[in-house]
Amino acid sequence: MSRILVFGSGSVGTMYAMLLSRAGADIACVCRSNYEPALSRGFTVHSTLFGNQTFKPRVAKSVQEAVDNQASSVPFDFIVVCVKAVDTGVSPAEMIKPAVRESHTSIVVIQNGLGVEAIYHQAFPRNTVISGVTYMPTSQVEPCVVSHSETQTLFLGPYPTELTTPADKSSTEAFSQLIVAAGANATVCDDIQVERWKKLIGNTTWNPVCALSRCRDLQFLHATPDIAQGFITESMREVVAVASTLGYGDVIREDAVQAQIQRSKTRQWPGVQPSMLADIENDRPVEVEAVIGEVVRIARKHQVSVPRLETLYVLLKGYDYHLRAKQI
Amino acid sequence: MSRILVFGSGSVGTMYAMLLSRAGADIACVCRSNYEPALSRGFTVHSTLFGNQTFKPRVAKSVQEAVDNQASSVPFDFIVVCVKAVDTGVSPAEMIKPAVRESHTSIVVIQNGLGVEAIYHQAFPRNTVISGVTYMPTSQVEPCVVSHSETQTLFLGPYPTELTTPADKSSTEAFSQLIVAAGANATVCDDIQVERWKKLIGNTTWNPVCALSRCRDLQFLHATPDIAQGFITESMREVVAVASTLGYGDVIREDAVQAQIQRSKTRQWPGVQPSMLADIENDRPVEVEAVIGEVVRIARKHQVSVPRLETLYVLLKGYDYHLRAKQI
Repeated sequence: MSRILVFGSGSVGTMYAMLLSRAGADIACVCRSNYEPALSRGFTVHSTLFGNQTFKPRVAKSVQEAVDNQASSVPFDFIVVCVKAVDTGVSPAEMIKPAVRESHTSIVVIQNGLGVEAIYHQAFPRNTVISGVTYMPTSQVEPCVVSHSETQTLFLGPYPTELTTPADKSSTEAFSQLIVAAGANATVCDDIQVERWKKLIGNTTWNPVCALSRCRDLQFLHATPDIAQGFITESMREVVAVASTLGYGDVIREDAVQAQIQRSKTRQWPGVQPSMLADIENDRPVEVEAVIGEVVRIARKHQVSVPRLETLYVLLKGYDYHLRAKQI
Repeated sequence: MSRILVFGSGSVGTMYAMLLSRAGADIACVCRSNYEPALSRGFTVHSTLFGNQTFKPRVAKSVQEAVDNQASSVPFDFIVVCVKAVDTGVSPAEMIKPAVRESHTSIVVIQNGLGVEAIYHQAFPRNTVISGVTYMPTSQVEPCVVSHSETQTLFLGPYPTELTTPADKSSTEAFSQLIVAAGANATVCDDIQVERWKKLIGNTTWNPVCALSRCRDLQFLHATPDIAQGFITESMREVVAVASTLGYGDVIREDAVQAQIQRSKTRQWPGVQPSMLADIENDRPVEVEAVIGEVVRIARKHQVSVPRLETLYVLLKGYDYHLRAKQI
């Protein structure tokens, strides 16, 4: 039986904890803000794909507590990191350290954005790091109660791609099989970064745009009907241009841009609320660096012109600065 | 004695009402939100340049009421329009109509942005329209109490420049002399649009940037020290490029950009709060079209590439959309 620690019990963490537990894995969840309800009532999922269910994994307030609660000397096989990629002052790689058994535990990073896996690879060079990209519209409607609809996909691949070993591959396969055993989707990729870039086309553009304008995607298109669609298209092309510079020109193309635009245009009014809009509306820090900062830095390094992305980035960084200053 | 109606009694309207009254003009102020305190206590100005003073002009709740209060058949010589350039559903040109005597009353438009004079010229083609650009850091600290510091300049010129008649010129001179008689600064320009563009270099960039990021100018530069200054410079250059297209290449140049950057960099921490930031913090509608929309439209018409300004514009329009939707 696989022993799995889920680090970060927001909506994505809850969903994958539920699926892995359905697959028969032994699950412990690190809960910080929602420890009390998780301990007393467990987690409830309302999903159009997986039905309604409540499950009660072991819970702990910290990684150390989760380790202490484990039967002695039995290490975790996987740590699934589902925290937000924001700078909290303490690296999540540092926080999971007590639960990482060298050369044994695989770290599955299901986070948005680019470059999010690097800190885990640096901290644990002898462990497998699995990069995960998920499409799964979820929201935490109250603590430990998650609503999920429409779709669920998980792309997985070892990080970094070019250093993949047979052990990394089999670990990635094993994790994928758990998800599939739960009746969900998982796909192992040769180069997971292709999937990160594909998702970034939408995320790097819509997330900051909706957060800064406070509009859902369709509302934003409606606010300046003669300009907004062209603007979003050009912004997405900037992401594609950066991806091309890194050698992804064959797989990240204009058709991906057009598909994204089409998807937004045909949504039900008033469109979707990207996670960054939800965060900004709740005065929570936003995933600036992972979602857009990293793309802008790569563009600058390779001298790709990304004026729209750079504008979105400096505005978001300013907003983040304002938010942090307010909280001091 | 000049008879002057001041339409819009915010901080700029109050300051110019005070100066014109010091110059001996007969002043009536249209007060909407601040009618009661204006009637009972008058206006108070705390100014580092003009001292502290209270003055009590005639006040009215509407233009029609101001006309009815006038001695019969004596028309206003000037109407000074100091309302914000936001779309309220009713055109300010329509609102001042009862006070405009054809071929007599001059309309002085002291508003931010570009293209703000057009509606007055269209509505009153036989009257002089004087375009005014002011630099005067003021804020209304409470209703009818205005704080002012640092500087005061008013540039004046007939609108549109190319149709200026001798009557327009002498009316502009007369208004200018009133301001100067009050001990303040006024300069009559051959082409006032040059001054509008010069002010726009700072306004079109800093106003939306600060409003969207919620930062004062220095805070914004501090939030991304390696990128923000270059970004602001490039944004200002986009404004300069649009001005060049209209034939202002000789007078709106790179040195204006560098002067603006230098001015922001040497401010006292945390920098200044542009009016649009104050508006957005108070959930008030912002001057999107006059301050940036018009620039973007001219750029599109003349095929000048302004990706940064366009980004700022679509984000602000989205924000404005969100704000108006919230108020319904």
